[in-house]
Amino acid sequence: MMAVLTPLMRGSALTDCFTDECLLQGMLDFEAALALAQARCGVIPPSAVAAIAAACRAENIDVQALGGDAALAGNLAIPLVKQLTAQVKKNNAAAARYVHWGATSQDVIDTGLILQLRQALQLTQQSVNQLLATFAEQVFRYQKTVMPGRTWMQQALPVTLGLKLAGTLDALLRWQVRLEELLPRVLVLQFGGAAGTLASLKQDALPVAAELAKVLGLTLPDLPWHTQRDRLLEIAAWYAGTGATLAKFAQDFALLMQTEVAEVSEPAVAGRGGSSAMPHKRNPVICASILTAAQRTPGLMATLYASQLQQHERALGGWQAEWETLPELIMLTGNIIAQSQELVQGMQVYPQKMRENLDITHGLLMAESVTLALAEFIGKQDAHHLVEVLCRQAIEQQHALYDVLVNDTRITSWLNATQIKNLLEPTAATGSAQVFIDRVLARYKEQQNEN
Amino acid sequence: MMAVLTPLMRGSALTDCFTDECLLQGMLDFEAALALAQARCGVIPPSAVAAIAAACRAENIDVQALGGDAALAGNLAIPLVKQLTAQVKKNNAAAARYVHWGATSQDVIDTGLILQLRQALQLTQQSVNQLLATFAEQVFRYQKTVMPGRTWMQQALPVTLGLKLAGTLDALLRWQVRLEELLPRVLVLQFGGAAGTLASLKQDALPVAAELAKVLGLTLPDLPWHTQRDRLLEIAAWYAGTGATLAKFAQDFALLMQTEVAEVSEPAVAGRGGSSAMPHKRNPVICASILTAAQRTPGLMATLYASQLQQHERALGGWQAEWETLPELIMLTGNIIAQSQELVQGMQVYPQKMRENLDITHGLLMAESVTLALAEFIGKQDAHHLVEVLCRQAIEQQHALYDVLVNDTRITSWLNATQIKNLLEPTAATGSAQVFIDRVLARYKEQQNEN
Amino acid sequence: MMAVLTPLMRGSALTDCFTDECLLQGMLDFEAALALAQARCGVIPPSAVAAIAAACRAENIDVQALGGDAALAGNLAIPLVKQLTAQVKKNNAAAARYVHWGATSQDVIDTGLILQLRQALQLTQQSVNQLLATFAEQVFRYQKTVMPGRTWMQQALPVTLGLKLAGTLDALLRWQVRLEELLPRVLVLQFGGAAGTLASLKQDALPVAAELAKVLGLTLPDLPWHTQRDRLLEIAAWYAGTGATLAKFAQDFALLMQTEVAEVSEPAVAGRGGSSAMPHKRNPVICASILTAAQRTPGLMATLYASQLQQHERALGGWQAEWETLPELIMLTGNIIAQSQELVQGMQVYPQKMRENLDITHGLLMAESVTLALAEFIGKQDAHHLVEVLCRQAIEQQHALYDVLVNDTRITSWLNATQIKNLLEPTAATGSAQVFIDRVLARYKEQQNEN
Amino acid sequence: MMAVLTPLMRGSALTDCFTDECLLQGMLDFEAALALAQARCGVIPPSAVAAIAAACRAENIDVQALGGDAALAGNLAIPLVKQLTAQVKKNNAAAARYVHWGATSQDVIDTGLILQLRQALQLTQQSVNQLLATFAEQVFRYQKTVMPGRTWMQQALPVTLGLKLAGTLDALLRWQVRLEELLPRVLVLQFGGAAGTLASLKQDALPVAAELAKVLGLTLPDLPWHTQRDRLLEIAAWYAGTGATLAKFAQDFALLMQTEVAEVSEPAVAGRGGSSAMPHKRNPVICASILTAAQRTPGLMATLYASQLQQHERALGGWQAEWETLPELIMLTGNIIAQSQELVQGMQVYPQKMRENLDITHGLLMAESVTLALAEFIGKQDAHHLVEVLCRQAIEQQHALYDVLVNDTRITSWLNATQIKNLLEPTAATGSAQVFIDRVLARYKEQQNEN
Repeated sequence: MMAVLTPLMRGSALTDCFTDECLLQGMLDFEAALALAQARCGVIPPSAVAAIAAACRAENIDVQALGGDAALAGNLAIPLVKQLTAQVKKNNAAAARYVHWGATSQDVIDTGLILQLRQALQLTQQSVNQLLATFAEQVFRYQKTVMPGRTWMQQALPVTLGLKLAGTLDALLRWQVRLEELLPRVLVLQFGGAAGTLASLKQDALPVAAELAKVLGLTLPDLPWHTQRDRLLEIAAWYAGTGATLAKFAQDFALLMQTEVAEVSEPAVAGRGGSSAMPHKRNPVICASILTAAQRTPGLMATLYASQLQQHERALGGWQAEWETLPELIMLTGNIIAQSQELVQGMQVYPQKMRENLDITHGLLMAESVTLALAEFIGKQDAHHLVEVLCRQAIEQQHALYDVLVNDTRITSWLNATQIKNLLEPTAATGSAQVFIDRVLARYKEQQNEN
Repeated sequence: MMAVLTPLMRGSALTDCFTDECLLQGMLDFEAALALAQARCGVIPPSAVAAIAAACRAENIDVQALGGDAALAGNLAIPLVKQLTAQVKKNNAAAARYVHWGATSQDVIDTGLILQLRQALQLTQQSVNQLLATFAEQVFRYQKTVMPGRTWMQQALPVTLGLKLAGTLDALLRWQVRLEELLPRVLVLQFGGAAGTLASLKQDALPVAAELAKVLGLTLPDLPWHTQRDRLLEIAAWYAGTGATLAKFAQDFALLMQTEVAEVSEPAVAGRGGSSAMPHKRNPVICASILTAAQRTPGLMATLYASQLQQHERALGGWQAEWETLPELIMLTGNIIAQSQELVQGMQVYPQKMRENLDITHGLLMAESVTLALAEFIGKQDAHHLVEVLCRQAIEQQHALYDVLVNDTRITSWLNATQIKNLLEPTAATGSAQVFIDRVLARYKEQQNEN
Repeated sequence: MMAVLTPLMRGSALTDCFTDECLLQGMLDFEAALALAQARCGVIPPSAVAAIAAACRAENIDVQALGGDAALAGNLAIPLVKQLTAQVKKNNAAAARYVHWGATSQDVIDTGLILQLRQALQLTQQSVNQLLATFAEQVFRYQKTVMPGRTWMQQALPVTLGLKLAGTLDALLRWQVRLEELLPRVLVLQFGGAAGTLASLKQDALPVAAELAKVLGLTLPDLPWHTQRDRLLEIAAWYAGTGATLAKFAQDFALLMQTEVAEVSEPAVAGRGGSSAMPHKRNPVICASILTAAQRTPGLMATLYASQLQQHERALGGWQAEWETLPELIMLTGNIIAQSQELVQGMQVYPQKMRENLDITHGLLMAESVTLALAEFIGKQDAHHLVEVLCRQAIEQQHALYDVLVNDTRITSWLNATQIKNLLEPTAATGSAQVFIDRVLARYKEQQNEN
Repeated sequence: MMAVLTPLMRGSALTDCFTDECLLQGMLDFEAALALAQARCGVIPPSAVAAIAAACRAENIDVQALGGDAALAGNLAIPLVKQLTAQVKKNNAAAARYVHWGATSQDVIDTGLILQLRQALQLTQQSVNQLLATFAEQVFRYQKTVMPGRTWMQQALPVTLGLKLAGTLDALLRWQVRLEELLPRVLVLQFGGAAGTLASLKQDALPVAAELAKVLGLTLPDLPWHTQRDRLLEIAAWYAGTGATLAKFAQDFALLMQTEVAEVSEPAVAGRGGSSAMPHKRNPVICASILTAAQRTPGLMATLYASQLQQHERALGGWQAEWETLPELIMLTGNIIAQSQELVQGMQVYPQKMRENLDITHGLLMAESVTLALAEFIGKQDAHHLVEVLCRQAIEQQHALYDVLVNDTRITSWLNATQIKNLLEPTAATGSAQVFIDRVLARYKEQQNEN
C-alpha cells in the first residue's frame, strides 16, 4: 500500500484520527472501559481492572502479526483480544480470564470506531467554525467587488465576489446546523454480544451497558445496532455533502484563475504550484487537491449506501466494506476543509481584471436591463426578441451594443442615449446582491452566537 | 422510453408527483404566483393576473412540442414560457407582456421542483408514519417469538423476531426525526433572476420575492441557491438512506423465506409470486421489488453527489443531471416504502419452523452459554478453546453437543448434566431482547405523541 | 413518470430501441421463434406455429394491464405469456397449449433484451463510424490551427486544434476496435428453462436451442447465462466509456467557448441556446446535453457492477435492476454520440482569437523553450530556476517576457535578441503535433478500410 | 492512514506492485530509460547515462520529504525530479543537467504507472490461468453432484454443482479472452512533454520517443494520451468485472454454507473463521473477504468513469483521482482472485446434504416435470394451473406431492403412479447439464492450448 500520497490527498489533522494506532487504541479503550464497567457492576473482580487497563495500549500490540491474523479471522477484534489476553496474562493470569468478557467482535470494533469518529467530528467542528469565520470575513471584504456572473459558463450579468462567497457561506451555515443535529444521534455505544441480545451477561447486561456508556462518555442506545448503520451513513453523508459544497467553490475558483479570466489566484507559497516543464506557470494546486478529493467521494458514498444492506445480526461484506471506506471519505474531506481554509484565507483577488472582463462583451452583458426597460413599453417577449436581434447585429458588426442601440429607432423611440448608457453600466447593476449578503452575514453572526 | 415497468419499479403514490403534468403544473404554479405577487407589489398591472393565472394549466401545454423545443433550448422553461405567453396573448395581449417578468429559467424550474417535492414529502411523511405504526404492532406481536440469530449468515444465538423488527423500527424512528429536521430547511423559494441578484426587478425585487414566497407557501431563503444544491441533496440522502434501512429488512426477509429456512413468507395474494415454469413456487416478489430499487439508489446518489459541483451562477451538466435522477430516486424509494408496508403488515410467520431451526445444530447454537459458564472457572480464553474443540468433535462425530459435553470430564468437573441442559435451551437465552424491544416501543409512542 | 425530457436527455435513434413496444416485441419475437424452432424439431405440432406467430405482435398487448400484472408477478414475462396465450386461444385453442413451451421467464426477457441490444449496437456502430469520419475531417481541417495548450486549466504551450481533435479520434478508434471485439461475444441466445438445465425439454433441448438460435440469428452459447451477466456489463462499459471520451471533448469545448476564451462556438441553430432572461447569450446547449448524460453514467455503471452478484440460478434484485438501468445508460450515450456528431460537424472555430489568446501572457507561454535553450549551457535545473525568476519579474513589472529577457545578462550571455525572439514565437512551437496527427489519420484510414 | 487491514483487504501479490517503493521505482525507471534513450539519440552526452541510472533507485529517495513536497507541488514528479537531480549532482554535476530532459511530470507518472500495471497484469494473468485450471478440475469432479437449483432464492429444479461451477468458468473464460485483447492495447509509453507535443525535444522528439519505448519494452502510441484515459479505464473495468464474476460465486457459496443449507463449507484452516464469542461457529471468512472487496469496486469504478473527463491537455482533479483509486481497485480484485483460488481449490462439498435438501419440498421441486408431462394432454396453461393448485394443496395439507397427485383423478386420468414417481425423482432431472458442462470444459481445454 502507498503512503507517500497521504500529505497530498489526506493532508489534514483528521488523518491522524485514522492511523493504525488510533484504530487499535479505540478498540483497546473499549476493552479497558468494559473491564472497569464490569468490575463496577460486580461482574468481574475489581482486581482485574488495573491489569487489563495497563495492557490496553496500542504500542503493546504487534501490528504486523495482528494484520496477518486478521486476514484469517476475518476481523481485527479476534486476534487483538488474543494478543491482549496474552499481554494481561504475563502480569496477571487471573485478570486475563476477564478480557473482552461477554462482548463480541463487532462491539469492540464499532465502539472503537465511534471513539475515533468522536475525535474526528470534534476536530471537524472546529475547522468548520474557523472556515465559516474566514468565509464571513471575505464576504464582507468583497461585498462591493463587482465581477461577471456566469451561467452555462458564459458571462451573464454582473454579480459581486461577496455574493459568490456568500452563496457558499449560506450552504456551509446549513451544514453547520446539520452537524449539530447529528452529533447527539451518532455518538453511541455499541454493545450487544454475539447476536445483539447481550445474552452472555444475563441479568448484568443492562447495568454493564449503562456503566460502559458512562465510562466512555457515549450515549447508550435503545438497542445494539450491529446491522443498522444509518448513523454511520449520516456521518458519511455530512462529510461528502460538506466537501461537495466546498469543491463547488474550488471549481469556480479554478475557472476564475484560468489564464484568460485571471480574476483570482491561489495564495502564493514558495514551492507550490510550479511546473516541472514550464517555469512561468502557477498551477491551482489547492483547487486540484480539493477537486481530486471531491471526485472520489461520490463513489465512496455509493459504497456506503450499498453497504447498508447488512444481513441478519451481522453482515457478510457490508460491514467490512465500511472499515476503510468511511475513514477514507472523512480523511479526503478533511483535506478539502483544510485546503479550503488556506484557499479562502489567502486568495488573491484582481478587481481590475474583473472590471475589464465586464467590458469584454462591449455591453452585451447588460442587454437584459435594456430588455426590461423596453418591455415596459412593448412587452417582455417583443423586447426580448428585438434586443436579441440587436445583440446579434452588434456581434456580427463588431460594434459596441451601445452604438447599435442608439442608432436604432425601435429603441430610441422609447429610450434616450443617457438612459441607454446608464442601463449598460455593469457596476450599477448588481440588484439585491448587497441585501442577500447582509442577510447571510447576519445569520452567520446569530448562528455563531447560539453556539 | 419505457413506461410498462413503472408499476413494478415505481408503484407508489409518489410516482404521481413526478409525471409530466405535475412537472409542468409546478412550473406554471410558479408563473401564476409570480404574476399575482408582482401585481400585489405594483410591478405589473393587476389586470394581467387573471389572464396569466387562467392560462397556467398544464393541460394547455403542447407537451410533445415542448419536449422537442426543450432539446434545442437546453431546458423546459424557455419553451414553456413561450407557449404560455402565446396562450395568454390569445385572450389578453396586454397581460402577455408580463408573463415570467424578471424571472429566469432556473427560478421557475427549481421552484416548480420544490412544489413537487413538497407534495412528495407530505405523502412520504404519511406513509412513513403508517409504516412505523405497522412495525410497532409487529414488534409487539412477535416480541416472544424466538428464532435463530444469524451472523455471517451462520446461526449464532437465539434472538426474537420482535427484536429483529425492533432494529428496523429503531432506525426508522431516527429517519422520522431526520425528516422533521430537514423539512423546514428545504421547502424554499427559488427566485434570483438571471444571475441570482434579482437585478431585473430593481427596487421591487425583495418585496416581490417575499410576496411570491407567501403566495406559494414556501420559505423565503436568505439568497437564491441556483448553484448551491445541498437542500436537494439532503432530500435525496433521506430517501436513499430510508430506503436502504427498509431494504436491509427485505433482504433478511428473503433470506428467511428461503426453502431451507422457511421461517416466514410474503403475504399471499392471488397472482403474485408465481413462476412461469414452476407451479409450486412462491417467489418473494415484494422483497425482489424492494431490493431492485435499493440496488439502484447508491448509483443515483453518486450522481447527485457529483452533481453538487455546479459552475458559477448556473451549471453546465450538474443541474440538468438532477432533473431525472432525483425524481427517479424518490419514486424508487416510494416503491420501497409502499412494498415494505405491504410486506410487514401481511407477513406470514412460522414460529414452529423457527423452533425447529434452533435445533438444527443439535445444541451448537448454545455453545457460547456453556463457554461463559465455564469461563467463570477456567477463564474465558481456555473455556472458549475447550468448547470450540468439543463443538468440532460433536460435528465430526455427528453427536448432539449435549452428549459430548456430559461425557467430557473437563466439562463435568465444573457443570453437571442439568446445568448443561439448561445452558443449551435456546428459548431461555434471548438475553435482554425484551428490554430492548420495550425501549424502542416506548420511544415509538413518545415520538408519535410529539408529532 | 416523465417523458417530456426525453428529447433533451435521450434524443437519438437509440431511444427508439427501448420503447415499451420494442421491449414487448423483442419478447414476442422470442416466443414466435421458439414455436417455429420447436415445430421444426418435432416438439410441437407444425400447425401451432402460424397461430402463435400471428399473435406475437406488440400491438396486440394490453400494455397497461401488463404493467400492473407485472408488479404482482415480479416480471413482464409471466403476464405477457398469459396475454399471448389468451390471444392465441381465440383463434386456435390447440396452438395455445404450446405457447412458451419449456421456456422460463428469464429466457424470454433476456433474449428479448439481446434482440433490442442487437438493433441498438448496429445503430451505434453506424453512428460511431460517421462520427469517426467527421472527427477525421476536422482533424485534417484544423491541423495547422495553433491554439494555447492548457494544463491545470492554465495556458501551457501551443498545440493545434487538430491535435486536440486527434486525441479524441485516437481514443474513438480504440473504442471502435473494442466494439468489434465484443459484438460476437455478446449477441447470444438465452435459453435455459427453469433452472438453466433445459430439463423441461429433455432430449429435445439441444436441437431446439440450436434451431432457436438459428431462427433468431443469435449465437448459441455453451450454456445458459441467467446469472452470469458479464456480457451485458461489457456492453454497458463500452457505452459508458465511449460516452466519457466524447464528454471529455465536450467539456473542453465548453471551456473554449467561455466568454473570455471564445475560441470556438457551437453550431448556430435557430431557437437553440438562447436565454429566457438574457437576449445576448448563446449557451453551449449541446455541450450541456452531453455533459448531463456523462454526469449520470458513472452512477449507472456502479449499479450494473453491483448487479453482477446475482444469486444462484436466478437473482433477487440484481437482474431486475438491469432492466431500466442498462437501457437508460445506452439511451444517454446515444444522446452523447448524436450531439457530438452535431457539435463536431458544425463547430465554429475562431483562429484569430486563438492567436490573440496565445499572446495573453506576453510571451510567458513560451518560457519553456527559453529554458531548454538555456539549459544546454547551464543545465536544466538552473535554467528552470532562472527563467522562473524572470517570468515572475515580468508578471510583477507587467513587462513582456521578451523585454525582461533581452535586458538580463544571465540570459544574453548565451542567447542573442533574435534567438530569444524566435524562441518566443508560439506558432513555430507545436513540436511533433503534425506527426502525431498524421499517424492518427493514417490509422483511421487503415482501420476503416479493414471494416 | 491504516495499513493493518491490508492483509485482510488486499492480501495478494498484486499489493506488492503498488507500494510506495514500486511507485517510485516505476518513475525512476522512466527517468533512467529516458537518459539512456536520449544518449542513444545524441540528445544528451553518453557520459550522463550511468550517473543518472545509478541514482534512479527508490531506496535513495527520502519518501517522507517527498510526500510533503508533493502536497505543495501537486504531484510526486516535481519533488522526485528535484531529489533525483540533487542525488546525481553529488557524483556528477554535469550529468545532473540532463535529468528529466524534455519530459513533463505526467510523462514520468503515467509511464511509471504503466510499468507497475505491466507487472500487476502479468501476475494477474498467471493467477487467472491457475484459477481457471482449478475451476475446470472442480467442474469435472462435481459434474454428477446433484443439488437444488435456486431461483429468487427458492428451490427451483435440480442442477449439478458442476453446472454451477461451469457457469463461473464460462464467464472466466471470457474474461481471459478480454484480458488478452486488452494487453497489447494498454501497455504503452506516455511521453508528450509539457503540452503533449514534445516541443521541447524539437527534431529529436520522435527518435527519442521510439527509443524510450524500446528501452522500456512498451508500445509506442500514435500520440501522447495525457487526457485520454480509456486504456486505464479498460484495465480497471477488467478487474472490476472479473472480481464481480468471482464475487457472484462467493455469494452463492456463502448462501450454500448457511446453517440451514449446509451443502458446502470453506476449506478448514487453523485459526480461520472462528468467532470471538461463539466457539461452535465457522464463519465464511473467505467469502466475506471476497464480498467485501466486491462491495467496494462499483463505487471505485464510478470514480474512474467520472475521472475520464479530463480538461484540455492536463486535468484538474480527474487525473489525480486515478492515483489511488486504480491501485485500490486492482489490489481489492487481487484479493478476490487469491481468495477465490483458495476457496475453490479447498472447498468442502456435502453431496448427502444436497440430496436431503432436494427432498425438503416433498416433491414440489419436481412439480414442473409433472406440469410438462400433463401439458401434452391438456395444454401448458391448464396443466400449470392444475399443478399449482395441487402444490398448494400439498403444502396446506402437509402431504408429499406424490400422495396428492396419485389421489387426484385429474392427474391420474393421464399419468399412472409409476410415471408420477419417475417424474418426481430429482436426480434424473438435470436436463442438459452434462452437455453444458462438457462444452465449457472443451472450450477451456481449447482456449488454454491456444495460449
